[in-house]
Amino acid sequence: MDRDRCLALDADDPLREFRAEFVLPEGVVYLVGNSLGALPRHTAERVRRTVEDEWGEQLVGGWNHAGWYEQPLTAGDRLAPLIGAGPGQVVVGNTTSIAVYQAVAAALRLRPERRVIVSDLRNFPTDHYMVQGLARLLGGYEVRDFAEGRFDDAAVVLLSEVDYRTAARHDVPSVTAAVQAAGALMVWDVCHSVGAMEVDVSGADFAVGCTYKYLCGGPGAPAFLYVNPRHHATAENVLSGWHGHAEPFAFEAGYRPAEGIRRFVVSTPHVLSLAGLEAALDVWERVPMDLVRAKSMALTSLFIDLVGDALELASPRDAAARGSQVSYRHPDGYPVMRALIDRGVHGDFRAPDLLRFGFAPLYIGYADVHDAAATLLEVLDKELWRDKKYAQRLAVT
Amino acid sequence: MDRDRCLALDADDPLREFRAEFVLPEGVVYLVGNSLGALPRHTAERVRRTVEDEWGEQLVGGWNHAGWYEQPLTAGDRLAPLIGAGPGQVVVGNTTSIAVYQAVAAALRLRPERRVIVSDLRNFPTDHYMVQGLARLLGGYEVRDFAEGRFDDAAVVLLSEVDYRTAARHDVPSVTAAVQAAGALMVWDVCHSVGAMEVDVSGADFAVGCTYKYLCGGPGAPAFLYVNPRHHATAENVLSGWHGHAEPFAFEAGYRPAEGIRRFVVSTPHVLSLAGLEAALDVWERVPMDLVRAKSMALTSLFIDLVGDALELASPRDAAARGSQVSYRHPDGYPVMRALIDRGVHGDFRAPDLLRFGFAPLYIGYADVHDAAATLLEVLDKELWRDKKYAQRLAVT
Repeated sequence: MDRDRCLALDADDPLREFRAEFVLPEGVVYLVGNSLGALPRHTAERVRRTVEDEWGEQLVGGWNHAGWYEQPLTAGDRLAPLIGAGPGQVVVGNTTSIAVYQAVAAALRLRPERRVIVSDLRNFPTDHYMVQGLARLLGGYEVRDFAEGRFDDAAVVLLSEVDYRTAARHDVPSVTAAVQAAGALMVWDVCHSVGAMEVDVSGADFAVGCTYKYLCGGPGAPAFLYVNPRHHATAENVLSGWHGHAEPFAFEAGYRPAEGIRRFVVSTPHVLSLAGLEAALDVWERVPMDLVRAKSMALTSLFIDLVGDALELASPRDAAARGSQVSYRHPDGYPVMRALIDRGVHGDFRAPDLLRFGFAPLYIGYADVHDAAATLLEVLDKELWRDKKYAQRLAVT
Repeated sequence: MDRDRCLALDADDPLREFRAEFVLPEGVVYLVGNSLGALPRHTAERVRRTVEDEWGEQLVGGWNHAGWYEQPLTAGDRLAPLIGAGPGQVVVGNTTSIAVYQAVAAALRLRPERRVIVSDLRNFPTDHYMVQGLARLLGGYEVRDFAEGRFDDAAVVLLSEVDYRTAARHDVPSVTAAVQAAGALMVWDVCHSVGAMEVDVSGADFAVGCTYKYLCGGPGAPAFLYVNPRHHATAENVLSGWHGHAEPFAFEAGYRPAEGIRRFVVSTPHVLSLAGLEAALDVWERVPMDLVRAKSMALTSLFIDLVGDALELASPRDAAARGSQVSYRHPDGYPVMRALIDRGVHGDFRAPDLLRFGFAPLYIGYADVHDAAATLLEVLDKELWRDKKYAQRLAVT
């Protein structure tokens, strides 16, 4: 596949108009949208409005007049279609780690007779760490690795739809069915799939995810928590803050949970960060997700074809079993990635040996894939990564 | 005290230059800075920089190059002097409710043999709600009201330095000493004092607070958590997310807490909201807190003098025993406050009968106090609040 053919594919891309809606630095192929999504062009004005027109002019009145107070629910309703959920089923706020804690703790309260939490040791570690903290606090719980494949005594199973390292994708309906058939509750983490494919967690009990990767909500944009309506009346939010109270402004001494999804709000929303997410949702409301998934599969397949056997593929070769990311293993992965970044192709490195390339279909095109693969092949062929300036590790990569 | 004398006091005010650094709406006396602080004038540019220059240009590199990753600690170090703490003792992030949960849970783990949590039923309810959620999750704990005055079997005592309703102020050193002498750990909530007076929690075990009231960090700006260094090696963060891990980028399967205050970071910081807080701290670094407290006492005393016995005072008459707020009781407090707001004097109403007026010394002056009192007296004298348009309740006030 030569570059001209790639340019032709870009010209025919039904999503091509979205690229202009993102700010992308000159001379860079940004393949880290699976970690931090690019800046939507109108976000700066949306955030400015919140700071100057809302906070500056309405002051405390912004809680009513600018809709800040309701934002965890209104933003949740806007986000819901991206995960197959309906209105009144998703709250936005806090971080994925905290949402994991809320979901898993609520599940344990719903299955008090079971003392096993299943988590995936290959999952992004914070999910596992939060489970460990909860289990340590409660005492008497076993934390079991998902790889053991046994759920019949589990209270809850926590799993990521897409593996952050390899991009291997679980089949959500079949795993959910198996877990629930065993009497356990299913919590999906969709951080690495939402915004890259059609996600549907509506059969699950809970789901969590972040909004700063494919969704482009901004660095540290608030996370979300989905709770299946069948649990709304009985599930407890153990982080029972005042915004989840039935009457927060009655200032009662005792906690009484609100009806519905509101009980899962904890406390004061991070309004400036939420403005960034709202701006991203302005874009997503116009995006056909079937086209996103089709393009994502085409981009990642093209990259795998072009790189060929120059590197050891760590991702599934079957596009349907893969997220929007391609990973390779290389014993000197760190200097390889630095040499690549030095030449304008931005991926990331995960210890011990993983090179990750994320393909955000809204702003990455076929010619980008061509150029990234060509540069990667040049770095490998000419062993450019052996330059000693690439050896030194940074604290955060 | 006539208006000319107040204008003279404003002209002599050593803090007068700070007023120009805040955006204040025309024709409004804003006495709700105890709920949401006003917008510092340079905040919009600071937030724009984070969105456009950092996120837009550096993309994922912002975690290193723009200092986002370290912000929970660097902003904590900047904030520390405002609460009598030193560097490496404060983390910024999440919400006050979540920080309360972290502090109280950590205290319970440090006092495993004790099964009583003391909280103040008069405190802002979310503190109490979070304690109730934690106690319900753990089982076997008694939640006791602070008013009972018994700590000898308590694991932890959670108390607000300043009461959000009456502005009554606790003496931090003597309460801390009494609690610790009883073998309990002391957690202070300084939401209603930080930025309004010289706060010193350095003798306490933990402290929490928000940054969107007197500190002017913006709606939903991140909260903070202080942990006394004597607990750094032993206190546990039960919300054990990846940013509190000893080596977060090693992606280990097991949680190992970082050394020092870092273990109390949970996960990805809300970078846009943090930009608002950073802008506020640019101001606070130049503010002499002794002058803030002196002016706060003068403003609140002047308001109490001017209002006289037209309303039932709910705050301490002794300025030293009071925060930077004056509260009154009125059976028709809601329409009274609405009539007042309609005339450009903004306070707030808290059910069932409390009128609250907050005096933020950086941007409220003596003439403002004069005008607010005069308008309040007019509303009361002429019973302007009986107009039926003021009767209807809003959801959030």
